[in-house]
Amino acid sequence: MSFETLKRHKAFGGETLFCQHQSASTQTTMKFSVHKPCPPDQVDSALIWLSGLTCTEENFITKAGAQKVLAGTTTMVICPDTSPRGLGIPGSEDSYDFGTGAGFYLNATTDLYKNNYNMYDYITKDLVTLLKGDFGVSRFAISGHSMGGHGALVIGLREPELFASVSAFSPIVNPVASPWGQKAFTGYLGDDKELWKQYDACELIEAGHRFNGTLLVEQGLSDDFLKEQLLTNNLETTCSKADQSFKVNYREGYDHSYYFISSFIEDHIQHHLQYLQN
Amino acid sequence: MSFETLKRHKAFGGETLFCQHQSASTQTTMKFSVHKPCPPDQVDSALIWLSGLTCTEENFITKAGAQKVLAGTTTMVICPDTSPRGLGIPGSEDSYDFGTGAGFYLNATTDLYKNNYNMYDYITKDLVTLLKGDFGVSRFAISGHSMGGHGALVIGLREPELFASVSAFSPIVNPVASPWGQKAFTGYLGDDKELWKQYDACELIEAGHRFNGTLLVEQGLSDDFLKEQLLTNNLETTCSKADQSFKVNYREGYDHSYYFISSFIEDHIQHHLQYLQN
Repeated sequence: MSFETLKRHKAFGGETLFCQHQSASTQTTMKFSVHKPCPPDQVDSALIWLSGLTCTEENFITKAGAQKVLAGTTTMVICPDTSPRGLGIPGSEDSYDFGTGAGFYLNATTDLYKNNYNMYDYITKDLVTLLKGDFGVSRFAISGHSMGGHGALVIGLREPELFASVSAFSPIVNPVASPWGQKAFTGYLGDDKELWKQYDACELIEAGHRFNGTLLVEQGLSDDFLKEQLLTNNLETTCSKADQSFKVNYREGYDHSYYFISSFIEDHIQHHLQYLQN
Repeated sequence: MSFETLKRHKAFGGETLFCQHQSASTQTTMKFSVHKPCPPDQVDSALIWLSGLTCTEENFITKAGAQKVLAGTTTMVICPDTSPRGLGIPGSEDSYDFGTGAGFYLNATTDLYKNNYNMYDYITKDLVTLLKGDFGVSRFAISGHSMGGHGALVIGLREPELFASVSAFSPIVNPVASPWGQKAFTGYLGDDKELWKQYDACELIEAGHRFNGTLLVEQGLSDDFLKEQLLTNNLETTCSKADQSFKVNYREGYDHSYYFISSFIEDHIQHHLQYLQN
């Protein structure tokens, strides 16, 4: 095993683990959680869940209720942390939306961040290699929430051959036009706005990237971040123009929280299982 | 309304609320969470969930997955905090198993605690009155975890006419014989061991208290606290001798955590619904 298991809990007939390993991409120890619904030798596929700002490897696995939905399947879920930690980079601990807990699933190019803030490579290389080698996974799906929904859409559009299915809850669909995205991209990528577009779902689709399947998006209509930060409508417009298949479920009264995610996680997992379990 | 709503989240078609109110029993502001699965005027019954040491009104409502199971019913769940807070009583903040977060669901008699640490009255009077008056509840069930499992068994046995059903996860069944119980009872009740017995499920049954129904208990066999603190076997022995109906489900490999609770909460809620929904 290339990782260390820190905690182990039986849950819904399977096992929820908290683990850590050394990441070549971030040059740090990275933590992640997994839930395996079946004996290890039967696991054949994985849903990668990318969490949002301020989250760790714990939030989804404790709050979303995914274990119950995965019971009886051969699909595991893995939840990586949202950034490298403990680096002491100046400015990385000053706000909730930049630095620690806010890696934005990109490869940084600015001097302070380029050696470690490489969450894009961490997910698509380190974590995928770990899942193939240590968990026996051969099929992948990706989803996430908010900043992690942005990550899932961007990674799915840039690595369409790697993923059987892509979905997102409350994603930041157009970060180049959102204050969260602008702050993060300035800090991690500098002023080159062409570079920014490589980490923006709408811009990627406009530049010709396609996912061969439906981008499934869940969005609460009482989400405080919808209008200023998430800009869901921009994804609808872009996908429609570009003939990229998508489905946005707007949910009346639901907000940006895990109460929203847990209410609809079963629908998303069933969507992914359609593609993973065959 | 006799309470204030601090946060409100739509979840599984119903509403999860975080609230606070003034308690006559504790003479403090007490917080609680609720989930209402249906429109307020349709709620007719409530499961009271008592949490364990160190917990607040948040743990169960965020981690157990109860909302999903209650969807489509007219039964709400209410999760009170585990002690009064913010009193600054000397010694009440020094350990995880006494004072703040560790009210043990009793009415204290020692000088330092008797004015406020009256969680037994808080549950059976303040909270029941609130549920009847503000939520329109007429039927009650009670359950809880660890210290809260102790609370559920004790309150169910002492107030059998109030509750339609009683269950517990990993309860401290015989606190007079457990280090956690002995520490708490000494601090809250002093040295009068006859008084201790009024807050001990096994002792209550031996003294003739009965619940007219099955005491349903869920217990993980990999629970680190089983042998020294929980003493589940003492409940089995006592109930068998006393002809009190009980059912203990021992679960191989499960521990003391919410991963265990969430795995079996549906069974317990279905048990309670049998008695509440008719």
